[in-house]
Amino acid sequence: MVDVVLQCLNEHKYIQVKETVREMHYADVAEVFERLEDDETARLLFRLLPKDIAAEVFSYMEAEDQERLISTVSDKELRFILDELYLDDYVDLVEEMPANVVKRILKNSSPESRKLINQYLQYPDDSAGSLMTNEYVYLKRTTTVNQALGVIRATGVDKETINKCYVLDSRHHLEGVVTLRDIILADPDCVMEDIMRTSVISVNTNEDQEEVAKMFYKYDMLSMPVVDNENRLVGIITIDDVVDVVQEEVTEDFEKMAGILPSEDTYLKTPVFTLFKSRILWLMVLMVSAMVSGALMTRFEGAIAALPLLVSFIPMLMGTGGNSGSQSSTTIIRSMSLDEIELSDFFRVWWKEVRIAVLCGAALAVVNFARIYFQYHDGVIAMTVSLTLVVTVVIAKSLGCILPMLAKRLKLDPALMASPMLTTITDACSILVFFMFVMIFLGDKL
Amino acid sequence: MVDVVLQCLNEHKYIQVKETVREMHYADVAEVFERLEDDETARLLFRLLPKDIAAEVFSYMEAEDQERLISTVSDKELRFILDELYLDDYVDLVEEMPANVVKRILKNSSPESRKLINQYLQYPDDSAGSLMTNEYVYLKRTTTVNQALGVIRATGVDKETINKCYVLDSRHHLEGVVTLRDIILADPDCVMEDIMRTSVISVNTNEDQEEVAKMFYKYDMLSMPVVDNENRLVGIITIDDVVDVVQEEVTEDFEKMAGILPSEDTYLKTPVFTLFKSRILWLMVLMVSAMVSGALMTRFEGAIAALPLLVSFIPMLMGTGGNSGSQSSTTIIRSMSLDEIELSDFFRVWWKEVRIAVLCGAALAVVNFARIYFQYHDGVIAMTVSLTLVVTVVIAKSLGCILPMLAKRLKLDPALMASPMLTTITDACSILVFFMFVMIFLGDKL
Repeated sequence: MVDVVLQCLNEHKYIQVKETVREMHYADVAEVFERLEDDETARLLFRLLPKDIAAEVFSYMEAEDQERLISTVSDKELRFILDELYLDDYVDLVEEMPANVVKRILKNSSPESRKLINQYLQYPDDSAGSLMTNEYVYLKRTTTVNQALGVIRATGVDKETINKCYVLDSRHHLEGVVTLRDIILADPDCVMEDIMRTSVISVNTNEDQEEVAKMFYKYDMLSMPVVDNENRLVGIITIDDVVDVVQEEVTEDFEKMAGILPSEDTYLKTPVFTLFKSRILWLMVLMVSAMVSGALMTRFEGAIAALPLLVSFIPMLMGTGGNSGSQSSTTIIRSMSLDEIELSDFFRVWWKEVRIAVLCGAALAVVNFARIYFQYHDGVIAMTVSLTLVVTVVIAKSLGCILPMLAKRLKLDPALMASPMLTTITDACSILVFFMFVMIFLGDKL
Repeated sequence: MVDVVLQCLNEHKYIQVKETVREMHYADVAEVFERLEDDETARLLFRLLPKDIAAEVFSYMEAEDQERLISTVSDKELRFILDELYLDDYVDLVEEMPANVVKRILKNSSPESRKLINQYLQYPDDSAGSLMTNEYVYLKRTTTVNQALGVIRATGVDKETINKCYVLDSRHHLEGVVTLRDIILADPDCVMEDIMRTSVISVNTNEDQEEVAKMFYKYDMLSMPVVDNENRLVGIITIDDVVDVVQEEVTEDFEKMAGILPSEDTYLKTPVFTLFKSRILWLMVLMVSAMVSGALMTRFEGAIAALPLLVSFIPMLMGTGGNSGSQSSTTIIRSMSLDEIELSDFFRVWWKEVRIAVLCGAALAVVNFARIYFQYHDGVIAMTVSLTLVVTVVIAKSLGCILPMLAKRLKLDPALMASPMLTTITDACSILVFFMFVMIFLGDKL
């Protein structure tokens, strides 16, 4: 359908555009905007949309498209869009637009919206407060089922979710929660007190958004009340926002684990220089660290000059050490972020990794021994390399679990100790172990 | 609260256990079971739970705890649990339990449950069909709002979600969808036809679960209808199941990108030998591939013997190449899995990576040149190493975007071309480039 609209726009068949758009999901209409190159056509399409659809579509757009649109519509149109936005989308918009656009948005906002937005903008960026909206339905303890349905009918149209309604006392303290389902299924004469759940799971406005996401998952929730330090309800978080948070956090984890500083925007929209800046820091740190491994080797120049063949095993040893370590650290970091492993499991985890490492190391060593022996007919070299391999794998897998857990213990991000950093460390280890064994077993040949 | 219950159980304060449990979320009660070591206490706690809570708690338990519990309860208790389970949880249970437990479950299932389960088990493991449940509310076109509320009141208690109701014709074809909210907010005399949305977003039973998850995200949905090839409604998928799918897929991506075969269970519950098997394959493949890099080096034994210092730059060159490539491949793979990059963006992406690579390579080369020049006072060696660095970074970042996109083009999993494989390839490249420049610039010294 997206393609149909694009084609109709191209062919100036505007009536058909209007009809097609009416049948489409808002997200798909937003996609049309994303794919429109031409600002003029974007404005035209926006004017073709029925008013109520227009605002919904707007909330599904990428920040870039929103900015483009705001810069082309009239103040009156802008006010209409803003009026229809849910508060959390409103706050997001203000946060994401550049200063001049924000100015125009605030100029066209109602005084009470402006006040609310200012209040919401004060919550830290990654906190529950920054995710919440104030569009919820609240009821009193003594409200009857029939009255509740009346309240919902009267005020529910503007609310982001009416599946859960919150029971508050006169000072806005959260006393309980009732689902729309409970209300529908209850006897019409019941009061909220009879059907509400009092053990409400809620979060504080300052709670970290990652923790909020974990609670949504653990309790299979669709929306969560947010309270201040006095347990007064200040807003709710709905699952659609949490889902976005989780995707962002996962992307951030992937980036960190590849030695990239997290970026805000999508890849194609980020300028080359910004991408460069996000990558160079770790490359530089790791390059300098890798020089240590190199410096280690200069101490064995004599051995290398006497037996240059030795050097040819180094890429394999370094590579295998790095890969073994990455396997462990990735597993451990992911398990910790899913709370499947706690710091108290340290020894269990480490002992498990050691046993896996011995198995892996032994299997790899056998293949290596056979290959070197058949190629060079030198059992001592074959044994030296194979032994190095086993020890390297054990060290790499040990570090792969120890370092991320240590980082967490020190309240650092475990992802710091992911593949890139770990590989650099295991590289140095494998070279050291290799030349140590070379000196022991091949010392007389050098 | 979890700790409170554990302590009360320890001190045999069963009345207090009963009271505390009543105030807790099912997920937290399930956590108590997870932390109970002793089978006998687990059975005891389960018997202390009020019946309706017991079944809900059961559905939140880990498979391991479910199995333990099933093996301790009586047939009558088992039947009660099974009766209360939603169909999708029921199917999951049958899929996850070992054969002897499944036998006992099926023996205690009603004939119609058995029939439904058999039908659901036939959907492929990763398909929409395997995620769905049949507990939804359906209405007719001509049902009035008041009748609809009646239907929901009469049948809604057993349904997994009543937030959306589906409008079907007499042959079960999906005609529209109405939200409970629409019904509550509509005029009581309206019929469903007036308020239903006809452009319903649905998936086919065979749709891949990853695609289903993407649709949930794109359209901010809480539940999705699943239809067969004739557009007949066969079930619905709710977001709680999708969220689990996404977490599993992300874990799988992390594993693949670290060269680990995906595993089913959590880390601590997986036996050492299973973990060994999931890791050894890639380690072996990569080790054998890394031998190629080594073999390349043996062709330059002469140069190495003459100037052993050269070898000391290899860890740094290999490491930086590997890290540069991983940054690119991780970014590209993640962006592709979020649909932010399409195959048609190939040249844009590659050109972007080349420019980033030149910037990164240049910055690293400058630092490197300075360090080598000041340490060894040899401009030619410093230049050789620095030039290698730039070329290596450009090659690594190019391969880091080309290989994953090529894999996708060939309908292979892009994650195949993640860090471990890529690092092995770039290792060989960096060594080759290095010795090529050595021959060109230092040939006369060797």
